[in-house]
Amino acid sequence: MNAPQQALPGSKAALPTLGLREFWYPALLSKKVGKKPVPIKMLGEEIAFFRDDGKVYALYNRCPHRGLPLSCGRREFPGTLTCLYHGWTFNTAGECVAALNEGPQSSIPGRVKVRSYPTAEINGVIFVYMGNKEPRPLEEDIPEELMTTSNIVHTHIEEWNCSWMPALENLQDSHDIFVHRRSLFYLFRKLPSWATVGVSLTDDGRGVDIRYDKMGPAQAEYETVGKYPRQVWWRRFKINSPRPGQYPKTELRLPGVVRIGFSDLMYVRWAVPVDADHVRAFLFTSRHATGLNGFVYRLYYAFIASWIFLRFFIGQDKIVFEKQDYSAPERLSQTDTGVIRWRRLVAEAARQEAGDDAIEAKFGAGQLVNG
Amino acid sequence: MNAPQQALPGSKAALPTLGLREFWYPALLSKKVGKKPVPIKMLGEEIAFFRDDGKVYALYNRCPHRGLPLSCGRREFPGTLTCLYHGWTFNTAGECVAALNEGPQSSIPGRVKVRSYPTAEINGVIFVYMGNKEPRPLEEDIPEELMTTSNIVHTHIEEWNCSWMPALENLQDSHDIFVHRRSLFYLFRKLPSWATVGVSLTDDGRGVDIRYDKMGPAQAEYETVGKYPRQVWWRRFKINSPRPGQYPKTELRLPGVVRIGFSDLMYVRWAVPVDADHVRAFLFTSRHATGLNGFVYRLYYAFIASWIFLRFFIGQDKIVFEKQDYSAPERLSQTDTGVIRWRRLVAEAARQEAGDDAIEAKFGAGQLVNG
Amino acid sequence: MNAPQQALPGSKAALPTLGLREFWYPALLSKKVGKKPVPIKMLGEEIAFFRDDGKVYALYNRCPHRGLPLSCGRREFPGTLTCLYHGWTFNTAGECVAALNEGPQSSIPGRVKVRSYPTAEINGVIFVYMGNKEPRPLEEDIPEELMTTSNIVHTHIEEWNCSWMPALENLQDSHDIFVHRRSLFYLFRKLPSWATVGVSLTDDGRGVDIRYDKMGPAQAEYETVGKYPRQVWWRRFKINSPRPGQYPKTELRLPGVVRIGFSDLMYVRWAVPVDADHVRAFLFTSRHATGLNGFVYRLYYAFIASWIFLRFFIGQDKIVFEKQDYSAPERLSQTDTGVIRWRRLVAEAARQEAGDDAIEAKFGAGQLVNG
Repeated sequence: MNAPQQALPGSKAALPTLGLREFWYPALLSKKVGKKPVPIKMLGEEIAFFRDDGKVYALYNRCPHRGLPLSCGRREFPGTLTCLYHGWTFNTAGECVAALNEGPQSSIPGRVKVRSYPTAEINGVIFVYMGNKEPRPLEEDIPEELMTTSNIVHTHIEEWNCSWMPALENLQDSHDIFVHRRSLFYLFRKLPSWATVGVSLTDDGRGVDIRYDKMGPAQAEYETVGKYPRQVWWRRFKINSPRPGQYPKTELRLPGVVRIGFSDLMYVRWAVPVDADHVRAFLFTSRHATGLNGFVYRLYYAFIASWIFLRFFIGQDKIVFEKQDYSAPERLSQTDTGVIRWRRLVAEAARQEAGDDAIEAKFGAGQLVNG
Repeated sequence: MNAPQQALPGSKAALPTLGLREFWYPALLSKKVGKKPVPIKMLGEEIAFFRDDGKVYALYNRCPHRGLPLSCGRREFPGTLTCLYHGWTFNTAGECVAALNEGPQSSIPGRVKVRSYPTAEINGVIFVYMGNKEPRPLEEDIPEELMTTSNIVHTHIEEWNCSWMPALENLQDSHDIFVHRRSLFYLFRKLPSWATVGVSLTDDGRGVDIRYDKMGPAQAEYETVGKYPRQVWWRRFKINSPRPGQYPKTELRLPGVVRIGFSDLMYVRWAVPVDADHVRAFLFTSRHATGLNGFVYRLYYAFIASWIFLRFFIGQDKIVFEKQDYSAPERLSQTDTGVIRWRRLVAEAARQEAGDDAIEAKFGAGQLVNG
Repeated sequence: MNAPQQALPGSKAALPTLGLREFWYPALLSKKVGKKPVPIKMLGEEIAFFRDDGKVYALYNRCPHRGLPLSCGRREFPGTLTCLYHGWTFNTAGECVAALNEGPQSSIPGRVKVRSYPTAEINGVIFVYMGNKEPRPLEEDIPEELMTTSNIVHTHIEEWNCSWMPALENLQDSHDIFVHRRSLFYLFRKLPSWATVGVSLTDDGRGVDIRYDKMGPAQAEYETVGKYPRQVWWRRFKINSPRPGQYPKTELRLPGVVRIGFSDLMYVRWAVPVDADHVRAFLFTSRHATGLNGFVYRLYYAFIASWIFLRFFIGQDKIVFEKQDYSAPERLSQTDTGVIRWRRLVAEAARQEAGDDAIEAKFGAGQLVNG
């Protein structure tokens, strides 16, 4: 009996609107960062990314002096970023090494610091760690299919006008067979009429696995409304129709990473909170293909997959979560079990981080001032 | 002695910014509603209107499941509206009759409900009742000249950038002879130089009648500033110049309906609150005319009246109440007696409704959840 | 030793976001005001300026009757402004002299008043006094170089997207030699590499004098980053290079007037708060030049100075203070001594005015209602 889950909390109130902090996040494409600093807002905080001697650095995007964005500054000396306003100059670790307007005798250098963030550059994407603790090992946060160098990894970035939570919950239920039934992607597939959801925690306790537990036939008979869906002749061919157990498993991991494994390709959607009302989505596809296979796959991605999947299919999702009134009362059900488990996981992680936030509050957001 | 009404309260503070609820309101034109649902915001709440088997239905525009606007949904089965996100399907009474994504065994149907609103379709306009009580008889709220089938009823809809209150108070004083003196509509009329206002409650106690009590001559002599208005030769002809007692009476009824009776035509302005800062105005004209008369009147409306009156004349009002700083302190006077009486009437009706609101608060705005 | 000024308060919290009131302020250019009233927002308040019989008058831009902006009105009679809505007519002192819609017998005239503000017209600019006390003598607030009739006074007005405070603090430090080093204005000057700031109160205690106390050589050696600035051959010529003691002194006076004296020209930047997030800057230049000299100077101003200085040089400042995050934590230093002294001066003046504000609060902003 799939009774409506009235008792389950799954409350939205305990979710951190600006995301979790003690995790690595993708920030932007490698090719976007050169000597000229680039400002990126994420987790409600602005960061200036810049490259020096090949490596990428990230500083909190406010000069501690008078609050000018450091991304307005420039590279006056190797290994530094100089603020546009008064020439306070910071090294890649965020330490002020010179206050140009005050001269060599200024007592500012060595006494002022701007927060710097650890970064990593993997497969053409820059990752950043914004937490207060020691950065976690990259492998714990970044899925292996994004870190491997033997796969072809494509990255497509979108900004959506909604909070990060609906953008992730979108992949935790059985909306798939309903919203996308009329997509090109599913056009020739024989989809189940309905599905119930099975949920389990991942082995490391940091993610939720969702799979279709039971699946209805291609067409079901509803007592009240009759048959659904309407059968059309072109779906008879059963091209690519998944059978029970074959439907791709969806994993949703902290801090907000969805992984869907297809037979030959991993799809990863990583939702990075920008602010309370915007999310930056990194849509990764990773596939092992070399030689001619690789060439054909690249063509397929560029001219077919990126349109059929990223534009049209994801475009249908975008309509849904941008329109969703996430503040409205809700009535969760069996197929939302994954949503509920996921929210619990996030709320628990947020509670753990609260201690760190208390520490940060002493120094001000993004600011580390030395004694 | 028309002393400034310092003692009169006429306070704006007691007025409900989103309007009164226990009344019928016009929502939109009949011809705008087909199978595809149409979202309309009114009284601060969003409603999805859709048509099924010829009749119009109205549901609160949020799926109780995950908060998607039902107006994004579609008619999968006769007599129902299906949410775009997970296929939860509601009948015209708002009862969930199927959860398509969960299959025929889902326990959701019969246990979840979205609020539905009574509707009526009269002379090409859809009316809706958003109150919590039993809907009042249509005849009590909708003026007879809009309900009659023997008149030609024209409906013109505008959205104005102001609260609903200034849009109504605009018709409760003697601004008319001042603001519109230079309008085409009054071009050849010999208007009084000034007028004082007489006010009385309507017999049913649900409206205020305003009429010009005393009227000055075509030109008056002001001790301080001299003669006003400047006399122009073309006004000498006294075409259509009203005499005392002949000036059309203005009635303003709850929930926000102005009726002005001209000799052969009724003009009705119905102000429907959209949100705290916007109002939708239904400008009705109703006139009995048949045969050739009717044909000529329709031509007159389309090519003359709708321009001279609806665009230019009402356009002058629109400038006024959109520019008016309704939050500014005010100093009411004799000619504002109608405004004051009207505000009292509204405040009293709002107090009566407060009890019903307390009931609604238990269920959430626009949401009715069954046990 | 220029230790970072941790102990100095210089707090932004005590600063009045809408400016000080008991001072004269420039409002707009004389040529913009004719019979038709012009609305100007300043110090968070809207004023209607209009001209009658050659003189400029200023009334609070809300009709006390029903809140319509008086700037929507018109001049029906000499020496008056009549509200568009009901014809309430105010003389230049703000007294209601007629309520046209109510007739000559209305009891409103003589009993209702709208606040009027003292104005002055000097060198093509209209000044206004918005305080509650007796207006101060013009000479106390308006620098002599703007009042003199023997100078050529140019006025250039800009609106900037920032509060008035950063727009002024921009001139209280040594950003100058850093931000503008690459400006056309400084192209051929041999600027000091760095400078420390000396600050003193003006004799009347109502302003802060800032001068460069110590100046570094054209190029300095920084232990950590090396030489700065990079030397370029064209700066060798020392055209116009100021020597210690010759660098123009900067004075910042209440309520927000920066004066910089060059050898032959006074530059005045007057920052007038519009609202909490916008400031109107009056950029004055005043120079004594007659005959052919005057003609050449006017040409120079029109085709060279206004571009090189007002557009490009001030344009660099505009980038800085519009980008500055004024709400960010800050870390002031030796070169911010002027900023700190100035903030103290403003905070002290605001405290003095607080008493007056308490009086005004009884009558409502911008409203004076008689017994």
